[in-house]
Amino acid sequence: MAAIFAISGEKNSGKTTLIEAMLPFFKEKGIKTAVIKHDGHSFEPDVPGTDSYRFLKNGAEGTAVFDSEKFMLVKYCSLSEKELFKAFPEADLILIEGLKHSSYPKILLKAGEWEDPMETALYIMNYLKL
Amino acid sequence: MAAIFAISGEKNSGKTTLIEAMLPFFKEKGIKTAVIKHDGHSFEPDVPGTDSYRFLKNGAEGTAVFDSEKFMLVKYCSLSEKELFKAFPEADLILIEGLKHSSYPKILLKAGEWEDPMETALYIMNYLKL
Repeated sequence: MAAIFAISGEKNSGKTTLIEAMLPFFKEKGIKTAVIKHDGHSFEPDVPGTDSYRFLKNGAEGTAVFDSEKFMLVKYCSLSEKELFKAFPEADLILIEGLKHSSYPKILLKAGEWEDPMETALYIMNYLKL
Repeated sequence: MAAIFAISGEKNSGKTTLIEAMLPFFKEKGIKTAVIKHDGHSFEPDVPGTDSYRFLKNGAEGTAVFDSEKFMLVKYCSLSEKELFKAFPEADLILIEGLKHSSYPKILLKAGEWEDPMETALYIMNYLKL
């Protein structure tokens, strides 16, 4: 089971940017990392005009596209982040973006403040003993 | 377990268009349908510029985005269509686009020929006893 850590905070506080900047650091350390983003607002899954978008718009319950090295799955259903954890059994670390009211260990970002990605990554590794 | 049917055939034979046109018909009949598309060529998962794209490009093994009614999951790994079937346990029907060399019941489309969506949907329903 992967260790879980959340990057939470106000809107426009740089959550995505911080996660993006930490990922190469985890990769360099051999820490397999997955990211789960909770979007409180509605996101548009997939892109207008693509095949999977067309399938969903026409009434498919869900759709997947796959090739020899990857897959993308979109499904209309309500689930929790815990169920999404199961999709990453080989991950060492799962970073959550959002879920500021959850009980996961977390950093709460504030708009206008900046966290150093390398320092934050080291903090997370030490905290989780990775 | 959902019934499986493949819409296969030559490139540009209208596989996606046929599936798209059949979906509302299945929905009207109360047949919960998922679509799994095999892309022999490499597809671009997610869209350049989106958060999940940025996470993957920066070294995440996989990423998920979710809100209260849906999720999108992208992961770099090799898997078969059979493993993707498990993602749709509540589906009555899973349509596969592609996989023309598989042993699933299928329709093989030819470029330049046209299949009537409603007739094809009825054929599939009768064939699979849905």
